[in-house]
Order: sequence, then C-alpha cells, then structure tokens
Amino acid sequence: MKVIELHKSVTASNDADAEELRREMKERGTLLINLMSSPGSGKTTLLSRTIRDLGAELNIAVLEADIESAVDAERIAALGALSVQVHTDGMCHMDAGMTRTGLEAMGLEQIDLAFLENIGNLICPAEYDTGAGRNVMILSVPEGDDKPLKYPLMFQTSDALVITKTDTLGYFDFDLETCKNRVRKLNPAIEIFPVSAKTGEGMKEWEEWLKKETSAWKQK
Amino acid sequence: MKVIELHKSVTASNDADAEELRREMKERGTLLINLMSSPGSGKTTLLSRTIRDLGAELNIAVLEADIESAVDAERIAALGALSVQVHTDGMCHMDAGMTRTGLEAMGLEQIDLAFLENIGNLICPAEYDTGAGRNVMILSVPEGDDKPLKYPLMFQTSDALVITKTDTLGYFDFDLETCKNRVRKLNPAIEIFPVSAKTGEGMKEWEEWLKKETSAWKQK
Repeated sequence: MKVIELHKSVTASNDADAEELRREMKERGTLLINLMSSPGSGKTTLLSRTIRDLGAELNIAVLEADIESAVDAERIAALGALSVQVHTDGMCHMDAGMTRTGLEAMGLEQIDLAFLENIGNLICPAEYDTGAGRNVMILSVPEGDDKPLKYPLMFQTSDALVITKTDTLGYFDFDLETCKNRVRKLNPAIEIFPVSAKTGEGMKEWEEWLKKETSAWKQK
Repeated sequence: MKVIELHKSVTASNDADAEELRREMKERGTLLINLMSSPGSGKTTLLSRTIRDLGAELNIAVLEADIESAVDAERIAALGALSVQVHTDGMCHMDAGMTRTGLEAMGLEQIDLAFLENIGNLICPAEYDTGAGRNVMILSVPEGDDKPLKYPLMFQTSDALVITKTDTLGYFDFDLETCKNRVRKLNPAIEIFPVSAKTGEGMKEWEEWLKKETSAWKQK
C-alpha cells in the first residue's frame, strides 16, 4: 500500500483536466466513483462490505484521500483490494490533477471500478470536479435529516445518495421520508439507497446499481 | 432572529484582525467561544441544553454560521436566547472579519458568553483564527475514535474537546480511553468533556468549565 504526498495542482483549468481524465477513464473502461461525505459517515465501512460482496465479480480499487494518516487505506488493503493513500497537504478537497496523480501511482490495469474516497467534508469536495464518472454522496443517520437544508450543493452534484447506518434509525431523531423529500427537491434525478453495512440491509440495491453503472461505463 | 449574508473579508491580515477582536471582547467582558465540529456532531443540541442549564446565571448569545438555511438559529431563538444566523457565501470557514460582522449585527450589550457555531467541517475552520477567546471542538461518538489521527490540526488548536452522544457508546465501536490518549498526544493541555445532552451525563463538568472560563475572562 503506497502513501503519496500531493500538492496543489499547477494547471489553471480544473474543469478541462477533469473532462480529459473522464474521457481517458472511459476509454480504459474503468468507472471512477467519487465518494463524498462528512467525517465518520461510514465511507470505509461501506466500501469494505462492498468489496467483500462484489470482489469476485469486479476488480475494485480504492484511492483514499486524507489530510493525514493511512488508517483507511490499511483497512482496504487488508481485504486484498488495490489501495493507495494520498495526503492532500492540508487541502480540504481533491481536484482532477490530484486524482490523476493518485490513479497513476495506483495503476489501473484491469480495474473495472475505482473509488475515490474524498476528504471528509460536505463543502469543498462538492466544488471541484475530480474527473470521476459518477459522484456519490454518503449521509449517515446520526448526522441528522436536516443536512440537505444546510449543504445543498453536495446533494445537487451527486448521482446517488447512500444513507448509511440505517440500523440506528430507531435510536436517532432521523425521518427517512423527510430526508428523501428534502433531497429530491434539490435533485429530482438522484438515486437514494438506505443501507446498513452492519446488518446488510439495502446493500443489494446499492451493489446492483454499481454493477449496472460499471457495465454501462464500458459500453462505447 | 436576523440572517446576515457575509462575503470574503477584505483585509489581508486575518491574524491581526483576530487579535484586535479578541482584545475588544476582553475589554467588553464577553467571552467568545468558537465551536468547531463535523456536520451533525450535535453542536446545536449541546448549545440548547447548555443555554437551558446556564441561562439563569449567564447572559448567552449564539452566532450560527452556515452555508445556507437558518434551522440552527431558529432552534436557539426558540429558547429565548439572542441568536443571529450568518451565511458564508459558500465558504467553508469563518474568519475574524466575518465573525466581527456577525457580532456587530447581534449586539453584545450585557452578554457574558457568546458562542460562534462555526461551519460543520473538521478542516478549514481550524486554519482561521476567528478572534475567539477559546476554541472548543466537538466530536460525536458515531464519528469514530480515529478522528484525531485524520484531522490533527483541529485537536491541536482547541482548548477543550467535548465528546458528544456518549449515550450511544454501547452501540458504536468507539473506545473512549483510546480516543482520549490520541487527543492528548496531539495536545497535552486540552480539557476533555464526555457528555450526553440527551441524558445529561457529563453536562455539569462542561458547564462548570464554561462558568470558570467566563468569570476568568472578566478579570483584568
């Protein structure tokens, strides 16, 4: 498992870099999914279970972005998946150039599905196109159902929302229908997957969506 | 309850602005506490209980900073406390100039203790001195005990850490002693208060600390 220290990308046009990276990934047949969420929403736990469930069907790789530490990449590597940790030099987001550097360090031969686990933050990551083919946001039940009201941009820029830790719904004051309605008001086309990586509830729907999107990405 | 739209501060030197604001707040005898945390860590719930418990002894005001919405300020105003909502024009932090604008809109006559509820984010807010007299970080049990490893700067810049939602300790894989040790390694002088605003556990120690700091701030 590698650890890469990143620095601010030197190019002026992140949007153009992102388009170019997306085009290359399409050509290569690797779907890159940009996973965004708050700290502690359960991104790594969701990924671990997804890799265990889909690892026999798809070649999966994970690019872990953090300010410091390599605890997440170590958890993923322990599952036998290709994994690289990048450090963002204090920056609160990943841009397309940083993502490219991480992917190049990882190598993507025969990878069907690559996840970028973006910095834990509901604001900055939504403002930078990473070049990913799909954006997925994760919201955990303990964070509360008011988050779409407070961080609308991230819900608007995501293709899918995974609501994690649904096994704790009885414990927290979180109304699933209220949350879904708030999200759909911001983004009517978004796919919503309530899941518990602990009990397995809802994982099948999320994983079917991943398989469908990965397969569609390989079509010319 | 007012809602103020903020824009990037025009002055070049945030550190000097912050020092000046701190000096003025000292002269006025109002302790400003900068509260930082992830989204959904329970800042507003902690503040609501703190205001209910201490409202008879101290005059408390709250400056709520968010990208959008006014849901938090409305919750605080419903308790009868002085409360102003500021919007940060998409920015992921508050700086000293933005804090000053919010405080001036609020008015601070006879306020002993003012809280700035900073943007929900573990990265950017730690990088900007707001001019507060004390920095307090909140970490909730569902976020996990590995957060000091991943976001060290915020733990290093805080005078106190409140660990919230301790009533859920039996439900999540969170080791309180491991977490405390990780935090003290980064910041040996930090005060740590494990609390549950739901059951009231630990609230007394946190509130005693607030009373002591507010009283000390008024000393010349």
